[in-house]
Amino acid sequence: MAAVAEVTRWRLLLMGWGDLGVYGEPSRETPNLDRMAAEGMLFPNFYTANPLCSPSRAALLTGRLPIRNGFYTTSGHARNAYTPQEIVGGIPDSEHLLPELLKEAGYVSKIVVGCCCSELWGVPVLCGVPEVSSVPISRHLGHRPQFHPLKHGFDEWFGSPNCHFGPYDNRARPNIPVYRDWEMVGRYYEEFPINLKTGEANLTQIYLQVMGAWAGQPWGAGRSACGWRRTVCSPPQEALDFIRRQQAARRPFFLYWAVDATHAPVYASKPFLGTSQRGRYGDAVREMDDSVGKILRLLQDLRITEDTFVFFTSDNGAALISAPKQGTNGPFLCGKQTTFEGGMREPAIAWWPGHILAGQVSHQLGSIMDLFTTSLALAGLEPPSDRTIDGVSLLPAMLQGQLTDRPIFYYRGNTLMAVTLGQYKAHFWTWTNSWEEFRQGIDFCPGQNVSGVTTHTQEEHTKLPLIFHLGRDPGERFPLSFASTEYVDALGRITPVVLQHQEALVPGQPQLNVCDKAVMNWAPPGCEKSGKCLTPPESVPEKCSWPH
Amino acid sequence: MAAVAEVTRWRLLLMGWGDLGVYGEPSRETPNLDRMAAEGMLFPNFYTANPLCSPSRAALLTGRLPIRNGFYTTSGHARNAYTPQEIVGGIPDSEHLLPELLKEAGYVSKIVVGCCCSELWGVPVLCGVPEVSSVPISRHLGHRPQFHPLKHGFDEWFGSPNCHFGPYDNRARPNIPVYRDWEMVGRYYEEFPINLKTGEANLTQIYLQVMGAWAGQPWGAGRSACGWRRTVCSPPQEALDFIRRQQAARRPFFLYWAVDATHAPVYASKPFLGTSQRGRYGDAVREMDDSVGKILRLLQDLRITEDTFVFFTSDNGAALISAPKQGTNGPFLCGKQTTFEGGMREPAIAWWPGHILAGQVSHQLGSIMDLFTTSLALAGLEPPSDRTIDGVSLLPAMLQGQLTDRPIFYYRGNTLMAVTLGQYKAHFWTWTNSWEEFRQGIDFCPGQNVSGVTTHTQEEHTKLPLIFHLGRDPGERFPLSFASTEYVDALGRITPVVLQHQEALVPGQPQLNVCDKAVMNWAPPGCEKSGKCLTPPESVPEKCSWPH
Repeated sequence: MAAVAEVTRWRLLLMGWGDLGVYGEPSRETPNLDRMAAEGMLFPNFYTANPLCSPSRAALLTGRLPIRNGFYTTSGHARNAYTPQEIVGGIPDSEHLLPELLKEAGYVSKIVVGCCCSELWGVPVLCGVPEVSSVPISRHLGHRPQFHPLKHGFDEWFGSPNCHFGPYDNRARPNIPVYRDWEMVGRYYEEFPINLKTGEANLTQIYLQVMGAWAGQPWGAGRSACGWRRTVCSPPQEALDFIRRQQAARRPFFLYWAVDATHAPVYASKPFLGTSQRGRYGDAVREMDDSVGKILRLLQDLRITEDTFVFFTSDNGAALISAPKQGTNGPFLCGKQTTFEGGMREPAIAWWPGHILAGQVSHQLGSIMDLFTTSLALAGLEPPSDRTIDGVSLLPAMLQGQLTDRPIFYYRGNTLMAVTLGQYKAHFWTWTNSWEEFRQGIDFCPGQNVSGVTTHTQEEHTKLPLIFHLGRDPGERFPLSFASTEYVDALGRITPVVLQHQEALVPGQPQLNVCDKAVMNWAPPGCEKSGKCLTPPESVPEKCSWPH
Repeated sequence: MAAVAEVTRWRLLLMGWGDLGVYGEPSRETPNLDRMAAEGMLFPNFYTANPLCSPSRAALLTGRLPIRNGFYTTSGHARNAYTPQEIVGGIPDSEHLLPELLKEAGYVSKIVVGCCCSELWGVPVLCGVPEVSSVPISRHLGHRPQFHPLKHGFDEWFGSPNCHFGPYDNRARPNIPVYRDWEMVGRYYEEFPINLKTGEANLTQIYLQVMGAWAGQPWGAGRSACGWRRTVCSPPQEALDFIRRQQAARRPFFLYWAVDATHAPVYASKPFLGTSQRGRYGDAVREMDDSVGKILRLLQDLRITEDTFVFFTSDNGAALISAPKQGTNGPFLCGKQTTFEGGMREPAIAWWPGHILAGQVSHQLGSIMDLFTTSLALAGLEPPSDRTIDGVSLLPAMLQGQLTDRPIFYYRGNTLMAVTLGQYKAHFWTWTNSWEEFRQGIDFCPGQNVSGVTTHTQEEHTKLPLIFHLGRDPGERFPLSFASTEYVDALGRITPVVLQHQEALVPGQPQLNVCDKAVMNWAPPGCEKSGKCLTPPESVPEKCSWPH
């Protein structure tokens, strides 16, 4: 099967480190992912690039920290920012995205995203995955067709540019559209129903299966034949279908598959509802795990496993505040939005039978940005040499068991909050959420107040960082004594690495400062065919609000 | 190999649920136990019988709750009690111990214990495993030879009746003896050195290997030939040796192997010191894991794996307050001494190639007391019918995948603190540690204050229990709303089970109320041969102090 080259498959959600059985989730409801790990390589020390989805996904597709690629805000000190519907900025055109580069090696790329991938400024990137209580995300593509994702590297697109928040009234705020390639094919809560009471929705099945059934069908026919009105597509043959088509044509392919079922409001399709020991969140995890199993089985059926590199990870830690109070970051402190381990350490599994030996564990400090560099290496390509690339290739770790010494930087906005080097993590700033949010009932570290460590105000420690040994104390509960030799030694190793990083840093233009209700999903391309065009309000650019 | 029957092998320590790679420990340093799980059955919902070692081990060997077998105190409400050196009470003669019963089926039994197994009142039971800051444990056998463990079911004994606390001055408090069968062969910090500065000690190797080298050798020769003076026995051939001898003689055997290396003060032998990412505690875990691997490999080499049932578990959750602040209970709340999940849910792996299918996970609610009943079933024996046995046989779960509905009761002293039924856990009392201890720096839930849940005083909830759904909320952070239908339904199921339990309960005579310095390890049998006899003080029985 030499003609079929590597797949890189990512699944990025707010699933936590501890949500997989293989990472210790007590209910053990992810048999497919656990098997994937048993057949591949597990990375227990793998990090996302930001404790929030949009910047993390921008980092994934560019191989660069958000502070470089522009996916941050300067509107408040150390504030997390993402891409709500009204965001004006986006990934700068000057950034090279992975699918663009892979095209040089003949790769066909597809993006299947359920939640939050925004193609602001024309590139299919980032996925605002805010908390359930926050402002819903969206993007402004409808009236800016020149920025369509298929013009920026991806050859196919199915899914939504934003998360499935709503339902909205289509007056103050439009419902989020769902696209098939160039055009909107419906909106959440309209053509793509989610029953918020029962939690039933077929979206994960649709993202896995429905595209094949839709192929070549006009909008109306697709809708009725394919059953995203709560019936199952027959025959079910998607994300799946993309793989089959590329394999049949002997084309190398890159599939970026990111469903959103575990994001609040949590849903699952009927066969999975009520089947988990963990409640509705567990139902969603089970359906996602089942889908992963179906994708891997297809690769096996097609006999292309040895030519297909598959990677599983997430874009931030479990959002511990989400409605059903589920999702778990295992032994780690706090969750999404924070730069403690619970916010940024992610499940990560590499699977490539015949190349990666089964049952391996790598202690390589890994980053979501490594997927950029690793994917290029798999395609025989070099990363761009005209800019700093933060990702490193994981091939030495995966194929030769080598470990590369490299730092992990933890940012909020343009503030370097923390750094990990080897086993030592130094916090220069600590902040979970604001007292204001905490008093409202928003707690990013429920039941995890560590005195002097978790804070509801921004606390500066730059002169005397809090340092933890993550091997002995993965839960970040016992800072090293400032007076200890170990502290002095660790700080002595960390300081020059941070100084070097900061001296060389050229921040990108901050893209997440300005919002405008006029750029929301009022009239996406294709809306006219289904009578779904809405009238945008007058443009009033304003500073976005980033409360945490 | 029909002549060789089942082994039941237990290893019981203060290791936490989260300390094994297979349960999600990030450093993944237990490859042998992880492989054991991959080849066997993992129990994610397995419980000890008490959040403290002595009562748990009494329960293991009797199949009965401590409240029934007498291993509790009535000297304070809801107080944890164990067996320090000065304890007067012990397991009542009327209790039937597992090795006694197995003898009916021709089993040869050996107990290898590093820490804390006391044979008070003549039976080799329970192991006070107190915190590093607490009173060291011991037992009073030296001057009461009629209570020797070999008179009560076990055929061989190597190890210590108490933990390796010390060194002591042998005046106010004697150093803990180490026995070989009938006689003391030395004392900790004297013939069995532990370097508290470097953490070096060969004890785990000795417990694994040294007995064979000692076989048939007199005391002095054994000491010099076998190198528990920091050299390695040559040839190393123990716990191991017992298995080899029974297999050669085609005798069914029961080995109860419980090293103590992860107990504070933590130690490891030289080859393991400094090898872990987790510090010295990790070194100890690695050495223990390596020893398990050696035992399993021997069974494979002897080709008796299909006739040998092996079980791994622990006697209480990780003691989060221990010196190196290591050991982890994964996602669970608090640790040892508490009746939250972190104190009582344990790692548990069953291994029996050819009978238990590889890679299985059982959601059976299991108990350490089930090992009593399961072992009897394996030997073709019925449990005693003249008393209540709390353990159930795990054979249906292990061999047919069946699930038995049964409650788990959580006691402190004679107080029923909590009960789990299905996914619901109801707390009738909550208590972590006292404010006094907390102010001294003893914190059983470091960094885990859950408002209204973890308490430093005893809090009664008997009229309106705190109820958690352990599937959705394994960390016990979000009690169900008292007003919810789910709460009312859960309470409606739990109440009759608790009432039935309490109505039928016949508490045993409490054994852990009285202490006396005269009963400490002053003059164990054999002391005269090595000039190690000490003079006991005058007998002054007094009420034991149980601060938590």
